[in-house]
Amino acid sequence: MGGDHGPAVTIPAAISFVESEPEAELILVGQEAVLLAELKKRKAAEHPRLSVVHAADIVEMDDTLETALRRKRDSSMRVAINLIKEGQAHACVSAGNTGALMAISRYVLKTIPGVDRPAICSILPNQKDGPTYMLDLGANVDCEPQHLHQFALMGSALVSAMEGKDRPTVGLLNVGEEDIKGNDVVKQTAVLLRADHEKGTLNFYGNVEGDDIFKGTTDIVVCDGFVGNVTLKTSEGLGRFVKSVLTTEFKRTPLNMLGALIARAALKAISQRLNPSRYNGGSLLGLRGLVFKSHGGADAYGYQWAIRRAFDAANNDLLSRISTKIADLMPQSSSADVPTNTEKNTEQKTA
Amino acid sequence: MGGDHGPAVTIPAAISFVESEPEAELILVGQEAVLLAELKKRKAAEHPRLSVVHAADIVEMDDTLETALRRKRDSSMRVAINLIKEGQAHACVSAGNTGALMAISRYVLKTIPGVDRPAICSILPNQKDGPTYMLDLGANVDCEPQHLHQFALMGSALVSAMEGKDRPTVGLLNVGEEDIKGNDVVKQTAVLLRADHEKGTLNFYGNVEGDDIFKGTTDIVVCDGFVGNVTLKTSEGLGRFVKSVLTTEFKRTPLNMLGALIARAALKAISQRLNPSRYNGGSLLGLRGLVFKSHGGADAYGYQWAIRRAFDAANNDLLSRISTKIADLMPQSSSADVPTNTEKNTEQKTA
Repeated sequence: MGGDHGPAVTIPAAISFVESEPEAELILVGQEAVLLAELKKRKAAEHPRLSVVHAADIVEMDDTLETALRRKRDSSMRVAINLIKEGQAHACVSAGNTGALMAISRYVLKTIPGVDRPAICSILPNQKDGPTYMLDLGANVDCEPQHLHQFALMGSALVSAMEGKDRPTVGLLNVGEEDIKGNDVVKQTAVLLRADHEKGTLNFYGNVEGDDIFKGTTDIVVCDGFVGNVTLKTSEGLGRFVKSVLTTEFKRTPLNMLGALIARAALKAISQRLNPSRYNGGSLLGLRGLVFKSHGGADAYGYQWAIRRAFDAANNDLLSRISTKIADLMPQSSSADVPTNTEKNTEQKTA
Repeated sequence: MGGDHGPAVTIPAAISFVESEPEAELILVGQEAVLLAELKKRKAAEHPRLSVVHAADIVEMDDTLETALRRKRDSSMRVAINLIKEGQAHACVSAGNTGALMAISRYVLKTIPGVDRPAICSILPNQKDGPTYMLDLGANVDCEPQHLHQFALMGSALVSAMEGKDRPTVGLLNVGEEDIKGNDVVKQTAVLLRADHEKGTLNFYGNVEGDDIFKGTTDIVVCDGFVGNVTLKTSEGLGRFVKSVLTTEFKRTPLNMLGALIARAALKAISQRLNPSRYNGGSLLGLRGLVFKSHGGADAYGYQWAIRRAFDAANNDLLSRISTKIADLMPQSSSADVPTNTEKNTEQKTA
């Protein structure tokens, strides 16, 4: 029900996704009448791998956490996250209010031992043709050094699991490379990360700057959720600006239009590589369950990518792999506490 | 002497600038032997509008403020800023250590009444084909609400003076449009800005997000220097990434290369509009003197833009115009204190 467009985007995305992925089963959570009407309109009400679970309430974008948590206990968000807890779904995808999604996820699912706060991690493209993993992208607008430290460990575990890298590099986003640069939180975080580096539990590269994200200087870029969210949205905005400049200039004269026609393969490839929808879908790392956040403004194509990431994460048993890594990296946590996702349910369902 | 490349960039930029601008006179401040050698190499040692003022020390990028302020009293930065104070130069341009430049500027020049901290303001392009003014871009990594409030007033005054807009719009950079979004500093700043809006002294639009910078939603975007610096560098990095994607794709096949050849006017226009060097040169707003900061990594073309902005600002008597605006907007400051730049010296010199 969430995001800027609600079921008008999530339903077509869900239909396309199950059609493209024969193993996927999606549980659509929200107001039954609205969801069924949307499914009927698209002739998918009888789809064998799409089911609806009713939830009366909707968490709005401007709801306080108090409202989302206490007053809307039957929200689509809450019901969907409950499905994970109950073992009826392997992962949850939402385009709704980020703060509410995190608060409800933490309340219902709890965090992995050793993790104070979940963080949103997503990928951005880089010049080395690989992904740069960046976190936090908006779950935590105020962070202490120990939170950024945990983000670094979680990001490192995620990249190890997803990219098969033994010692992925971690960069700390700052206003300069030098140690003396930055605010107090970042400086204190660097001390914690350097200590881990010396122990060999983390491959800390040092401070990185904004341009290092797209250079691909490090596998992981760590920052607080305020900086991360602004950075992500700025990048999306610049991507759209570039697209508008390309369109304007290639349409300016008949000669430019001819060139664009001849090089249309190049323009198509450029458009695809720069399309922010391809990078949609951040994982809420640090929870005892797989929760994915889509950009609120995502279109159906972008929302499909968020579902794709949730599906792949569940399929690859990401949760237990991350939990194990975190348990190894964090001395205070016990590996006996590590939750596994697959033991509860062998079918592949995403709420 | 500053920046990543020192005189190898600043000297050719200075030579090109005085050649393109017959009214400009530049004082090159730094180690005389180094500067003269660089000038001689480029056959400009005898240029009538280029002079050298010796300064023995160089503020390094990793110098502490203590070192820059107390131990290097004969640094090129300090000597150049002294030239403004003494009325021998109208503006100063530096590509050096931002923190040191701000500290020395504040110490030597002092701030305008009503301003606690100078901020770096620069422009970014937007989809409305106009400039988006953004501040702070790195002078203040930790800000309180009153600082962001002052940045909003200074930015508003700057845009009024430079763009001739009576009531430029101010956006507060945040992780969402809604009032409840953001950290405490941003929320408290919004309260101050709304109060000004109600008084009619500021045209506060409300919260804006990262993508609004390039949409051109508001004339001015206000944020702290950590967020601003990361955002700026991320944008520059993404710009370079886009350029590399364009180059790769248009060279991938002979057909793409042919299209690029035919549409070369479009590609040239795109390259120009997206070149970050064109937007180089931030002004340190809030000082009793005109100080401009170039990106440390700027090339000679980019450094010329920083000199251009300093020259235009001095030529347009920006200092007294901003000071007057600030005095009008800030009840606690007295307009009798407003410094003017042009009364000291009628020649146009930039240090």
